Parts: sequence; structure tokens; C-alpha cells
Amino acid sequence: MPYTAPVADQILAMRVCAGVDALAAHERFASLSPDLVEALAEGIGALASGEWAPLDRVGDQQGAVQDGHEVHLPDGFAAAYRAYVEAGWNSIAGAEEFGGQGLPFTLAACVLESLGGANMAFSLLPMLTVGAIEALHHHGSDAQKAMYLPKLISGEWSGTMNLTEPQAGSDVGALRATAAPITEGPHAGKWRITGTKIFITWGEHDLVENIIHLVLARTPGAPAGSRGISLFVVPKFHVNADGTPGARNDVNVVSLEHKLGIHASPTCVMGFGENGECIGEMVGAENAGLKAMFTMMNSARINVGSQGVQVAEAAWQKARDYAQTRVQSARAGSPDKTPVAIIEHPDMRRMLMRMRALTEGARALLYTTAGCVDRGALGDTAAQARADVLVPMLKAWGTDIGEEVASLGIQVHGGMGFMEETGAAQHYRDIRIAAIYEGTNGIQAADLVTRKLGLEGGAVLLTLLAEIEADCADAPQIAALARDCADVARWMIDGAALDARLAGSVPFLKMCAVAVAGWQLQRMARVADTATGDIPRTKPVVAQWFAANIAPEAAGQKALAMGGADLLYALDAATLAS
Amino acid sequence: MPYTAPVADQILAMRVCAGVDALAAHERFASLSPDLVEALAEGIGALASGEWAPLDRVGDQQGAVQDGHEVHLPDGFAAAYRAYVEAGWNSIAGAEEFGGQGLPFTLAACVLESLGGANMAFSLLPMLTVGAIEALHHHGSDAQKAMYLPKLISGEWSGTMNLTEPQAGSDVGALRATAAPITEGPHAGKWRITGTKIFITWGEHDLVENIIHLVLARTPGAPAGSRGISLFVVPKFHVNADGTPGARNDVNVVSLEHKLGIHASPTCVMGFGENGECIGEMVGAENAGLKAMFTMMNSARINVGSQGVQVAEAAWQKARDYAQTRVQSARAGSPDKTPVAIIEHPDMRRMLMRMRALTEGARALLYTTAGCVDRGALGDTAAQARADVLVPMLKAWGTDIGEEVASLGIQVHGGMGFMEETGAAQHYRDIRIAAIYEGTNGIQAADLVTRKLGLEGGAVLLTLLAEIEADCADAPQIAALARDCADVARWMIDGAALDARLAGSVPFLKMCAVAVAGWQLQRMARVADTATGDIPRTKPVVAQWFAANIAPEAAGQKALAMGGADLLYALDAATLAS
Repeated sequence: MPYTAPVADQILAMRVCAGVDALAAHERFASLSPDLVEALAEGIGALASGEWAPLDRVGDQQGAVQDGHEVHLPDGFAAAYRAYVEAGWNSIAGAEEFGGQGLPFTLAACVLESLGGANMAFSLLPMLTVGAIEALHHHGSDAQKAMYLPKLISGEWSGTMNLTEPQAGSDVGALRATAAPITEGPHAGKWRITGTKIFITWGEHDLVENIIHLVLARTPGAPAGSRGISLFVVPKFHVNADGTPGARNDVNVVSLEHKLGIHASPTCVMGFGENGECIGEMVGAENAGLKAMFTMMNSARINVGSQGVQVAEAAWQKARDYAQTRVQSARAGSPDKTPVAIIEHPDMRRMLMRMRALTEGARALLYTTAGCVDRGALGDTAAQARADVLVPMLKAWGTDIGEEVASLGIQVHGGMGFMEETGAAQHYRDIRIAAIYEGTNGIQAADLVTRKLGLEGGAVLLTLLAEIEADCADAPQIAALARDCADVARWMIDGAALDARLAGSVPFLKMCAVAVAGWQLQRMARVADTATGDIPRTKPVVAQWFAANIAPEAAGQKALAMGGADLLYALDAATLAS
Repeated sequence: MPYTAPVADQILAMRVCAGVDALAAHERFASLSPDLVEALAEGIGALASGEWAPLDRVGDQQGAVQDGHEVHLPDGFAAAYRAYVEAGWNSIAGAEEFGGQGLPFTLAACVLESLGGANMAFSLLPMLTVGAIEALHHHGSDAQKAMYLPKLISGEWSGTMNLTEPQAGSDVGALRATAAPITEGPHAGKWRITGTKIFITWGEHDLVENIIHLVLARTPGAPAGSRGISLFVVPKFHVNADGTPGARNDVNVVSLEHKLGIHASPTCVMGFGENGECIGEMVGAENAGLKAMFTMMNSARINVGSQGVQVAEAAWQKARDYAQTRVQSARAGSPDKTPVAIIEHPDMRRMLMRMRALTEGARALLYTTAGCVDRGALGDTAAQARADVLVPMLKAWGTDIGEEVASLGIQVHGGMGFMEETGAAQHYRDIRIAAIYEGTNGIQAADLVTRKLGLEGGAVLLTLLAEIEADCADAPQIAALARDCADVARWMIDGAALDARLAGSVPFLKMCAVAVAGWQLQRMARVADTATGDIPRTKPVVAQWFAANIAPEAAGQKALAMGGADLLYALDAATLAS
């Protein structure tokens, strides 16, 4: 059976975890009725399942192909993208003044979740465009907004983010691309960009009229490091006065990377100004480029965390279908020696339940975070602070469970899972990048134990954990885990050395993420009887299994979170690596 | 830096964990001096690193290629295999009466570990041949032994195991291949084999003169299920009276599978008797085929568990080298803002230490198991029983950590890890099969909690756990974990329902494997000062980090191991899968 968007669970999560009904009560979202939420979830689900999912495997097999300065996608991608744009899906959360529908981020998260579950590689195209929209919306001039936002929001044009260079990965401050001011001629006031960027997602392709590159570069005399970085907008085609694409700019794809997965997402090496004629405009203030990047980082990290949910859902669906049809051996201990579908075997059930519980838990965390972002945007500073704390948890744990669930999906398929024809292996390959890009999961954990843990002297996180504990009287394992998390948090706040905090950061993040996800599953289970489909029966069981299994497992990370860094530095680097 | 066999750690593990010095005291291994152990480890390490490792990437890229009834390997494979055979490495543990060197299994395990670390896909060729040798050695007639063993032991011929059919995977009893007796003509007394087998590793290739297929099939009127299966030997070329290969037998490769990894290992669909002329001889008694398969299963499962160690070692070496040379960002909190090699960052150290500790722990478990096999073969029944208990732990946990370490290896590489050029991704793809073949890891866990846990009423496992606890006074986390394991074991022995045992089997296996591995690392650390290289400095730190981190993490599985099966069956299959 092909991928089906998990619409009923998305709707429940949007209601319970994101609180979309309360958002609808706000004047900004006056048009947002419960009916509309359901219609949108069902509509994008249908498009994702019907148009995008059938292209997932051909995208993997054929991949993006470079032909000189052009990159071609497999047959079907152009039509599927057009169908998506023409139905208005790209503009869901865009500002109304630029043609967007002005709906909550939560709805945009639902759109991306369904698209990515159908076709992760393809969904990176709209995901990256969101980044460009945010950068321009928050930091662009009025003229820049007018020039670029309508076409980016509609999806007629796409966007890219150009940060990474060979020597500047996690350390973006080490980048060397340059921007020289142009003082004369038709481009006076603009900048001449020179440099090479790597790992540029959808940097070149043939699905849109124009590609709008957001590029980090250094102006002459800029300070070293991250304080000397400015942001520039560099269109593939210069934009004419009437808004149509004009002459070609001097920015070109140099090569495509040969990757483990997401083969249909062209990962480009981009050359800016190879002929000295790459023209860009500065976005925002000089040397404030990194700040502009941070603006969009929250939603980008949420969207990558969502990819874990997406691929987990797709892997779960494949495994579930296989386990129901594959017949192998009788039940152990059964007097009836008739072979049964493998879903009947205990350890197979364990794997399937684990896949389902992790996927639904991560989805609950996704919409919890998205709802906080929406309330934050409406001025709720507590919600914004909570979003800040949740984002690294979602990005890291969401992508980690994506990998685990994809691996379990292979395991459920047995030998067939290792064969590319089932598609289970593709999920395992595709999702592996998500723990790396948009800030590695280690960087997420560092963000949690340094910047985010320190918010309001630790009160933001500790308040969340106390709320979880208080609300989980009927799920003692979740309450206990929340207490464990608070123990670690206080130990970190109360003076654990920076190295010790960082050494324990990944285990600590996992504990916190599981506590939040388990809590939200409990909340969903309590109101599941108002949901559609099989959720009223399944959610309480899934939530309870999560609490009984995933929570104590996460609690087993406490010793690792508080273990300190001494043993890690007991050997010098050369000896450790001997 | 290319792969280097971990010779010093292998030697220490062979001494401390396998007790190879005690083996050498036995008259059967009179020639086995400590010097010889070291010479063999160094010799195979040099060949593996020098001849086999350089072919790992080309093997992945070019893969095995079918050309009609033939399968070709990339350039270099033939010469590298010849170098291996001509130096006598294939015959290490073979019986002396058939030209083997009669050395302990422990040494053969060392040979395979080094070969597989260099090139996992390639190492499956000798690994499968071992299976054929064991089947024939234990169950073949004198004539069959004389005909096949010398060439298989030397490595001039290779062997395959033909069990799986599309409907018969884990449930091998469901197989349908048939064998009809031949009563007349030149093949009178032999059998006419008909059927299709899938997933046949190295089923066809061009590196040897002859391929000896061991095939499970049903004779006319055989009982249904696993009690009606017989074992046959089916050579690719009939063997002439003088022992040379003669006419072609009617067994052919039908197709090659397109797999996630181990591309250089031809995974064949094999057609037996497509022209009605596939001739085989029965091996052992009629309907006793499955018993014959079990004979070789212990060593095969050990060898697959070893693959986890192999790939983990290779992944660790790549990650370690990258982390020492990749410079990115200053140390957090350091007044010195100079960027450092990433190995200096705390979370990177955590990942590297985890890779190293898991790899060395699994290696310790490997040689512990191998040593028990050797002592068992010398008549030590307690050692044999311990081997029986350890084999499923090694197979499942060894391959699980192989996957985890390979994934960590990608993570250490950051974005470059997702690019195929670094080779980190290949390890992640290659190792994924090891948790599936030779009995899935779920089947290993089921074996542990049913058959193996029941040995001597539980005394075999409980004695092992008590020994661990007693010997780990200086590693309290290991002792505590051993107690937790014993708690679970007693709960299972004292009447937990079969479904509950199976539902907890995978978490329980993990706990036990970690306890044994952690214990053996402690034992190695105590005598590390007699080892060579950096081991005297590194092993105590690695063992201590393992105890402080991996052991409590595994203890976090206790609730999962004892959680029972009720929640897994709270939903019927259709609802669970809804």
C-alpha cells in the first residue's frame, strides 16, 4: 500500500498539542475554523499521497542529474510541483500582504509533514524556500520584499540558503566568501559576490522560473569570525522591473554530491562569481548576517525535526503492511501449528509498537513545538521561550527516532528489508542526513545545555518539567522521568563545569524530549475519544506503552548525563585515537 | 589513513578473553605458542590491510555483476583472494587430515575479523566456505570428505549455504525444494534437485575453480515442516575421479539482488534443476538436514557477530582519523579562540569514546565466545554450554553495535559523512544486513530466552552472571547490571509466560551482552600492562567509561525486559496496524 498521510493523528496533535483551536480564537487567525484545519490536513494529505509519494522511489533511483549548468529532476517532479503550487499549498503561512494565506505555522508544519512523508527529498524544495521567505520577510527592505516575496510565497520561485564552505561547516564563522561593493554602473549600490559554497540543497534545478539564493559573505574589512558576516540575496536570474526574470546572474552549479540518500534533492556545490559578475543585494545591516540566519533557524530546525517524524511514519506504514501480509511460522507455544502473519509474533509486535510509539511521540513533540511558535508570534513570550527550549529537543530527538524507526522498518522486513526494492532501505538512507544538517544533533544538545537551559536562570525548562510531572500522575514513568530531568537540569544549572554539561548534553536532551513526548501522548490519549478513525482505541495503548518502555529507557540515560567529562579527557587526543 | 587491523587488541583479547595460552597447553594445539598467535594476528592483519582493504570501496562502487550464468567481481578481487589462499590463511582451523592447520577456532575468528574489517563483502566468501566445511566435516561420508574438504579447506573451492526460499525465511521448515532419488544410470544413488533458492551469498562468482553448494530440500514423502528436510551437496562442476572439476551441473545463478550494502558480495537467486539435471548427493541421514544446519550455526552466528566488530572497527578508524584532522571552532569556554581539531570538543569525544568502547567491548565478547567454543571442542562441557549462551548475545549485540558505531562514524564526519566519498556511509549500509541474516536478532533473543536460558534449568546463565558480579567489585555498574540480568533471568525462569519472555527478549539480551562485554573489558584492563602499543594506557579508561556509561544505559532496559506482553496484544493486529 502506498504512503497515506496520517491525517487523523495530525488533526488530533494540532488540536491537543498545538492548541490550534485557541489560535483560531485570535483575531489574526479569524478564518481558521476547526473545519478548515481538517480540510487542510486532508487536502495536503491527498496531494502528498497522490502526487508526491509515487515519485519517491523514482527520485531515489534516477536522482537529480547535472547537465552543465543545469540540473534535471526525474519525470513527474515538475508536474507534481506545479500541482502543489497551483493549489496554493506553498503559501499557507505566508504573509497575506504578499499573497500568502497568513495561517499559523502549525498548519504549515502539517503541510510539510505530509509532503515529506511522501517524498523527503522533494519536500526539501519548499522547506528551503521557507527559509528564504523568512530571511527576506524579517530583514529585507520593502523593495526586496516586494520583488521576491510574492513569487517565493506562491512557490513559483524557490529559495536556497548558502552558508557552508569546505572549511566552514558547524563553524560558520570561518566562511570566506566575499562581497565587494559596486559603486558605479547599473549595479551601483549592490555587491559583487565571490566564493564557493557546498552542500547547497536544491541549489540548481529546473522546476521553477527563478532561484533566489540567500548567501552569507564577508564585506571588505569585516571583523573576523561570525561577527563579520553579512547576508545577500542573489537571484539566479536578475529580476526585471516588471518582476519577470531577466538576464542570468553569475551563479552556477559546479557539481552535485553523490550522497547516501535523498538522491532527488540536488545537493550542489555552487560557484558565485566565477566570471566576476555575480551581483547581489545586501539583506539587512552589514555584519548582521548571522543574526538574520538565526531568525529562520527555529522554524528550519523544527522542519528538520519533522523530517524524522515524516520518514518514521513512512517506514512504519511499510513495515506495518508487510507484517500483516508476510506469513511465517506458527505462534510460539501455540497448539495450532498454522503459520501466522508475522505481526502476531511477540518481538515483531514489540518492534511495530516501538515504531508507532516513537513516531507518534515525535509527532506530538512536533506540534507542541509548532503551537508554541504560533503563540509566541502572537506575543506570548512564555510560549516563545518554551519553543526555544523545545526546538533543539525536537530537531535532535525527532531525527534520532527517524533513524531508529527506519532501521526497525528494515528489520521488520527481514532479508527483504536489505533489498532496495521494498523501499525500507531508502528511508534508512534518506533520514541519515537529518541528524547532521541544520546544526548537528550534538550542536542541538549543546544549544540546550548552554543557551536554552540558561533562559530565565533555568526556569523555562524547570517549569516545563514541573508541569509534566504534575500532569502525569496517571503515568508514573513519565513523572519520574521529568523528575530525573529536573535533577540533571539543576545539577547543570548549579555549577557543573561547561565540559561536564556538554559531555552530558546528548543524553540529557534525549531524556527531556522523551518526557515531553510521553506527556503529550498522555494528553492526546485523554481526549482521544473525540478523534476519528482508530485513534480512540490505539492512542491510549500507544501512550501507555511509550510510558512503560520509552520513559524508563530514557531514564537510563541519567548516569550518562551526569557522568562528567573527566574520563573523556583522561587520554590526550592522540592516545584516545591510537 | 587506510584500515589497519587492530592486532594488539586482538592479541590481548585472544589471551585474556579466549584464554589462548591455556589452549596451547592442550596436546591438540601443541604447535600453538604465544609467538605463533602474535605472528598469525600480525600476518593476517598485514594481508587484510594491504590486499583486501584497498578493494573495499571499488567493491562497493562496481559491485558484483551478472553476465548470463556468470558473476564477475571487480578487478583486484581475484588476485587478493589468490594471495589469501596461497598464504594458507583459509586453512587455519581446518582439520589436519584434510590439509588444514588444525589451529583453534579463536585464531580463525581473528583471521575473519581482520579480513572483514578490511572488506566485509569480500570476507563473506571465506565465511560461507567455513559453513560448507563444517557441514561436510560433521555429516559427510568419508568419500564426500575426501572429495570436497581438501579443496574447500585450502580455499581453492568455495562453499555456499542454500536454505532460504521466498516463502521460507526465518521459517526454514516451509521450504519446498525437492530431491528425487536417482535409481539408474551414472548418477544412481544420487538425487535430482529441483527448486529456487534466494539470498544465496556468493552463490556464483569467478574467483574459484568450483563452488560447492550445500542445499536443503525435501525427499519424496518427507514429513511436513522442519522434520522433513534433508541436506545435499551440489557442486557447480561435477568432480572427476582425479578430483578435478568436470562437467557443469544444472545449477545456475538466476539473478543478483540489488542491495543496500555489501555490493561486492553477490547475493544470488539460484536455480537448481531448471533443466531437470541438477545432481546432488545426500549429506548425512535423510530428514536430518536441519540438524546438520544447526551444527554449523554456532560458528556462523559467531562470525556474523564478528562482522559487527569488524565494521565498527573500520568505522571507528575512519572517524578517529577525521576527528584528528578536521579543524572547526575553538573549545567552548576557552579563552583561546583558535579553532581546534574536532576531537577536542566534548561531545565529539563522547561519540569517539562510545565508538571505541562499544567496539572493544564487542571484540571482548567475540573472543570470550570463541574461547568457549575451543574449550568445548576439547571436551569442556561447561565451556560448551557457556558458548551456547553467549552465541546469541554476540550475534545480536555485536551486530547492533556495528550499526550504532557505523552511524556514529557518519555523525563524526558531519556533512561529509553523508557523502559516499568518505566511506563512512558504506559501513552504515554494509553492516545493516548483519542484524538480519543467520537468524534475525529477534530470533537470537528468542533463542536466548527459550532454549539457552533453559539450559541446566537456568544454571548456565545464572552461573555466568554470578561470576561477573563476583569479579566486578571494582566496577560496581557492571556488578549491578549482572544482578539486574539475574533478576530478569529468574523472573523468566520462575514462570513468566512465553509471550512475556519473548516480549522482553531483545532488551534482556542487550543487558546480558553488555554485562559480559563490560566484565571482559575489566579483565583486559587488569592485565593491560602486559600488552603492546597504547593499550596499557587506553584499556583502563575505555573499560571504565564502558562501565560508567554503557552499563547503566543497559540497566535502563530492565523495565522493558520485564514489561510483559499484555500491552503488545491489547490491540488486535488490524487495529495495531491501523
